[in-house]
Amino acid sequence: MSDKPSILIVGAGAIGSFYGAILKKAGCKVSTVLRSEYDAVKANGIRISSPLGDLSYRPDHVYRDGDRPEETPDYLILCVKVLPGVDRAALVRPWMGANTRLVLIENGLDIERELADAYPDSPIISCLAFIAASRTEPGVVEHKAYGKLVMGRYPEGIDENCRELSQLFTDGGINIDLTEQVVGERWRKCLWNTPFNPLSVIANGADTRTILDTEGGEQLIRNMIREVMTVAEAEGYPMDDSVIEQNIEGTRKMPPYKNSMALDYLNGRPIERDAVLGNVVAIAERHGIPVPHLNTVLVTLRMRANLENRD
Amino acid sequence: MSDKPSILIVGAGAIGSFYGAILKKAGCKVSTVLRSEYDAVKANGIRISSPLGDLSYRPDHVYRDGDRPEETPDYLILCVKVLPGVDRAALVRPWMGANTRLVLIENGLDIERELADAYPDSPIISCLAFIAASRTEPGVVEHKAYGKLVMGRYPEGIDENCRELSQLFTDGGINIDLTEQVVGERWRKCLWNTPFNPLSVIANGADTRTILDTEGGEQLIRNMIREVMTVAEAEGYPMDDSVIEQNIEGTRKMPPYKNSMALDYLNGRPIERDAVLGNVVAIAERHGIPVPHLNTVLVTLRMRANLENRD
Repeated sequence: MSDKPSILIVGAGAIGSFYGAILKKAGCKVSTVLRSEYDAVKANGIRISSPLGDLSYRPDHVYRDGDRPEETPDYLILCVKVLPGVDRAALVRPWMGANTRLVLIENGLDIERELADAYPDSPIISCLAFIAASRTEPGVVEHKAYGKLVMGRYPEGIDENCRELSQLFTDGGINIDLTEQVVGERWRKCLWNTPFNPLSVIANGADTRTILDTEGGEQLIRNMIREVMTVAEAEGYPMDDSVIEQNIEGTRKMPPYKNSMALDYLNGRPIERDAVLGNVVAIAERHGIPVPHLNTVLVTLRMRANLENRD
Repeated sequence: MSDKPSILIVGAGAIGSFYGAILKKAGCKVSTVLRSEYDAVKANGIRISSPLGDLSYRPDHVYRDGDRPEETPDYLILCVKVLPGVDRAALVRPWMGANTRLVLIENGLDIERELADAYPDSPIISCLAFIAASRTEPGVVEHKAYGKLVMGRYPEGIDENCRELSQLFTDGGINIDLTEQVVGERWRKCLWNTPFNPLSVIANGADTRTILDTEGGEQLIRNMIREVMTVAEAEGYPMDDSVIEQNIEGTRKMPPYKNSMALDYLNGRPIERDAVLGNVVAIAERHGIPVPHLNTVLVTLRMRANLENRD
């Protein structure tokens, strides 16, 4: 037996599979809990092509959602999408031991709270992934680029768990930025995601170039970023005005890019609307801050979901 | 020969065909200029079923777009959609005589200006149609309900031409409201159309019930109506706050309704985006009035059009 901590990945899509591979490479015992991919992974393991080399691995245990664990993990890494119909606290319950640390590698804002409320005694490590990866077929992942994690204890600080886990990821070959203010980092990431992702969905899959080059598009993005900034500031995370132009210029320098929320929408998969946009608007309302641009996009997305009977 | 005035309908879709039928019934000579429907109408005339009875008729002349007129009409009634790619002033030019009065039965705001500029000596009669009618196949129209026209001289007043034409429509069996302020009436109609029509497109064809019952939907409609009202007031057409709830309550009393702009969009036809929404935002900008909700919807519609390479 290794003296390295044991890892359980809940929701091993592209993100979960990739970070599991990194920890496997670092010498950890890595198991997965799967639903639709169970048969494929049970038979063939997880196949990952990557600029870092072949990261394919066989999880130590391949559990099916509903199984009981043979042992509870030291770190439970939750990588499912944050959707209104998914009770993440219930999803992890069977796998949580007395000493299990909960790790979130998920998008959006204010997504830790329901888990912190459900597991007040478990330390929560909150992570933001900066990665381009996609699942091409069951159990098969293509890692295209990047991979950095921004990591911190929720709601703030850096503890020994963060340090241990970040060292393991570093040993596995990826970069980690430890942060004392992970919630602030979530706001910072939302400056981009909250305008661009939902707009791309509303525009039926417009890429970044189309969004910025449409008459009035760049200004709309600017207005939406400013609304996010105003809410972030009210929450205690002020940012300098210069980040607006930085986000726009940075986006203009990238090749035209269709974000994952747009791809989810176009492929009929649910989108993380509330994690990325709805929660920002809800927090704005608590502060009495008007966010008319964000709100218009949110409500039109809700109308569409109601029309399509999906959420 | 009748001593009744001669009529030419340019753009004989559902609306043009119906109002042509009414004037035919009133004893006028009614001709049409057609494009895609030419062969069907030349062969079979225009077939119209209606609660008013069978309104089918053969136009006195069936012209094809590009023909030369045998005589210029007393009234040229323009019923084409108001679209960025359609030069309406050029479209009517071959048919305009020295004494031809120009009649617009078209939706939207600030749609008279380009014709008034092109034909400064021709009186313009501006009309708003309140009607449910649709073209079911080439040359065939189903008139379902209503039919009232609100009519006035552009930019304001009621002249002898308005009186003559309104009498003919009345003789043909429909109701006419003559108004001294037809532009104000356009603003009044836009209170409904400017929020509901584009939102329905953005939401991929949501009906009025879906729009109002979505969480935040009714408030979004309220905010958009208020923005239109603020611009209307700056243009000299103040309205009482009570019209907001009147529009919402009136809509709730109707059966769920999918508006014509949504149907156009869903059927791949161009939408009157600028006539109904873009012009309102442009006028707001001239006055320096912020209209963030309207602007967000406008820009997202433009993004979609850019993505689809259509406008």
